[in-house]
Amino acid sequence: MTEPTMNGSWVRTAVLVAVLLLQTATCQLQYETRYCEQRVDHFSFVNSDTYLQKYLYNDTFWDHDGGPIFIYTGNEGDIEGFAQSSGFVWDIAPEFNALVIFAEHRYYGDSMPYGELSTTNLTYYGFLSAEQALADFASLIYEIKNSTPGAANSPVISFGGSYGGMLTAWFRMKYPHVVDGGIAASAPILQFPGVTPCGAFAEVVTRVFTEVNPECTETVRKSWSIINRLGLTEEGRGTLATTFSLCKPLKSYIHVLALISWLGAIYDNVAEVNYPYPADFIQPLPAWPVRAMCEHMTDSSEDDDTLLQSLALAVNVYSNYTGDTMCNDISDSQESNLTSSEEPWSFQSCAEMVFPMCQTGVDDMFYVSPWDYDTYAESCYEAYGLMPRRFMIEMLFGATKIEDYSNIVFSNGHLDPWSGGGILYNVSDTVLAYIIEDAAHHLDLRGSNPADPQSVIDARNFEKRYIQLWIDEARINNLAKKSS
Amino acid sequence: MTEPTMNGSWVRTAVLVAVLLLQTATCQLQYETRYCEQRVDHFSFVNSDTYLQKYLYNDTFWDHDGGPIFIYTGNEGDIEGFAQSSGFVWDIAPEFNALVIFAEHRYYGDSMPYGELSTTNLTYYGFLSAEQALADFASLIYEIKNSTPGAANSPVISFGGSYGGMLTAWFRMKYPHVVDGGIAASAPILQFPGVTPCGAFAEVVTRVFTEVNPECTETVRKSWSIINRLGLTEEGRGTLATTFSLCKPLKSYIHVLALISWLGAIYDNVAEVNYPYPADFIQPLPAWPVRAMCEHMTDSSEDDDTLLQSLALAVNVYSNYTGDTMCNDISDSQESNLTSSEEPWSFQSCAEMVFPMCQTGVDDMFYVSPWDYDTYAESCYEAYGLMPRRFMIEMLFGATKIEDYSNIVFSNGHLDPWSGGGILYNVSDTVLAYIIEDAAHHLDLRGSNPADPQSVIDARNFEKRYIQLWIDEARINNLAKKSS
Repeated sequence: MTEPTMNGSWVRTAVLVAVLLLQTATCQLQYETRYCEQRVDHFSFVNSDTYLQKYLYNDTFWDHDGGPIFIYTGNEGDIEGFAQSSGFVWDIAPEFNALVIFAEHRYYGDSMPYGELSTTNLTYYGFLSAEQALADFASLIYEIKNSTPGAANSPVISFGGSYGGMLTAWFRMKYPHVVDGGIAASAPILQFPGVTPCGAFAEVVTRVFTEVNPECTETVRKSWSIINRLGLTEEGRGTLATTFSLCKPLKSYIHVLALISWLGAIYDNVAEVNYPYPADFIQPLPAWPVRAMCEHMTDSSEDDDTLLQSLALAVNVYSNYTGDTMCNDISDSQESNLTSSEEPWSFQSCAEMVFPMCQTGVDDMFYVSPWDYDTYAESCYEAYGLMPRRFMIEMLFGATKIEDYSNIVFSNGHLDPWSGGGILYNVSDTVLAYIIEDAAHHLDLRGSNPADPQSVIDARNFEKRYIQLWIDEARINNLAKKSS
Repeated sequence: MTEPTMNGSWVRTAVLVAVLLLQTATCQLQYETRYCEQRVDHFSFVNSDTYLQKYLYNDTFWDHDGGPIFIYTGNEGDIEGFAQSSGFVWDIAPEFNALVIFAEHRYYGDSMPYGELSTTNLTYYGFLSAEQALADFASLIYEIKNSTPGAANSPVISFGGSYGGMLTAWFRMKYPHVVDGGIAASAPILQFPGVTPCGAFAEVVTRVFTEVNPECTETVRKSWSIINRLGLTEEGRGTLATTFSLCKPLKSYIHVLALISWLGAIYDNVAEVNYPYPADFIQPLPAWPVRAMCEHMTDSSEDDDTLLQSLALAVNVYSNYTGDTMCNDISDSQESNLTSSEEPWSFQSCAEMVFPMCQTGVDDMFYVSPWDYDTYAESCYEAYGLMPRRFMIEMLFGATKIEDYSNIVFSNGHLDPWSGGGILYNVSDTVLAYIIEDAAHHLDLRGSNPADPQSVIDARNFEKRYIQLWIDEARINNLAKKSS
């Protein structure tokens, strides 16, 4: 699974985790940690095992007489991390008098259906699917409504970012009798085979860099052939190791490929978390980190050595913003903090969440990296003993044909590489797209910040209006039923 | 599973099969029999087995350039039986230039995931669920659209009666990106615990008899205590056996209970298939068989012996309309022709399709038969080693909270006992109820007949208008996408 040509996409999918997982906790959130007994298999009767799904629960702000329920549909990581990084939900809960629930996704955090065995082989691993996770969320709401006095008629609003946003959209789509509306932030529900071209992600990254300075893009673009050329000789590899302050020498060309992959992932990551204020996820980063990087890459006509030095300075913004990093360990890679959650996401990517990801070097600033389904499928079979269900998500959730669903706001940051697989146009009167001009990956879901651009403030107000509308609709429907 | 107090409900559920399965084939239908490879488990990755789902295919009338697809979502029996008894689909296919598909339900007919092992134990049996069946239907349409030139943009309309109607409703609800609208005929989607009172079915049967003649109901109502009294003595049991022309003597009171159950089931069945023309399903029956029976029960003030004689003549309409029956075998019961499909339906009733069914003897004309969930659950555990998932259907499909779904016509016959668990009021502008005044169980789905009452002709016209509307909407949506 670490085959160089696929690294790009693995890194990217891992970043989906990283972004939400490791954001700075700026305040101490108040919640109870609770557990809900769930069936391991919701849809068949062979396996009647159950497991405990973790969820966080806060009723401080809740109107105990039918106030709404806000549920965050947890994605690939510990739920506490998503609670910390989804400040929007906490910020608005008081004004809506909402019960706040953050529900952990099965096979992440403490919600392991078979404890340590969960990820050992397909017998245990095989119940990790989006459909099962959605049924967990539906069962959890069903359970809470039936066991909490005052909650039986509570409207339910779902929130999620990234894969969590996909789950929120699908949750509303599949269970509109359970959830009244959903804010699906930066949810690339079109990032699937035959729906979105594999190069979309890299093209948005490139655009984000170009919008800062076309020279910045051009510098990156030119760097690959220089690195490749130097990588062919021992002397050149020495130069590369020195220039990029690598911890270990580049012993052969295969290590040069790792360097190339490491660099590519940095541009991807920086674009994704290009927030207007300093933040700390994968690494501590300054405000508008793409801009900060591009300040070092302003002249692509520099000679090769100087261009590489400029690039190294730019990369340093990402790899050593604090100045504490003595050297760069490219084998360790930026996912080092994600070991616990990385593997289940890889499994999901192989099972059903098949995201085609490629780079052409023409439509984007990257090195050439094709996406080949057969190679992908083979590596999945090798790693997990399963062949991807290539078109499963489209069959289950409809991809572009979602006009008959309702009450979803799909928000996407104009600066977010994942927007390439997002819903960017209104699908209907009730399935809406909202583009946030100055936002990277689900900035709108993060807590309010003095540095927030007006566009994200506007987006949050837009979302709040729809949340209120959905709550009102749900209440009107309830009243209509009572009086009939 | 044959415990007397539960017999009523088993008989009733079995009748769901019977009605569609054994109707007279009045014409020779034209279709190809095809098979589609399906995953046994659509929602997990532990089991990657596949099986062949049977479906019937007719493109005689089809406009090969995007004409609509009509799919019948098969229920609990051989799919050929449903094709024969759903003449409406065949009748209207030519005017809509539709491709006709009748898809068999897994674990029925030839669509056995594990051949003869399929129903032997839970390991094989456990993949029999409505959710899995719906995914089969969705996959089948997905497959047909992708492999049939001219079908990619075909609107899809689903049809189903009884449990098949429930599936058609749920199919549209869960897969609106696959199916554009559904005609759910006599679909008791509310016949679940906590949603519909257990006595609803018996009350409608009673009303149907009362509307013919209140004396008819009263005669039935009085009969139980007479039968009970006679059943206590050997002499009395002899009288009963003679009166009802039983093949075997009633050796003990337990046999009297079987007689009572047999009689109750007859009233249920006759009400359900109370069609305006002679038909042959469970038994050959005259037109309006409830009326024919009630012609023998016009005076409930008759003395006990005479009343029982009248009852026996009434029952004879059902058990011996042809005059070929030498004697009545109450142990054999009216389900004798359903052995192949009866058991999987019992499994489904235990797994998730939990229909509470009771009789009070007060609100209905029947003997008292309570419904006790614990007893029910125990018998399920004994029979299949599983406990029912009592609220699963409500959690998955929403029961009464379906206002956010769309494009479904729920038709119910005013004379159909299953209407007690049906959708009888418009839920929204696009989820509609249609009550057919003179119809029993999904008469509207049957082929046109000279004896059809005007109300069923009106119902079919109503359904055709919505089918056309859904097709038009789907085409407009397709055009809008092409031009955007």
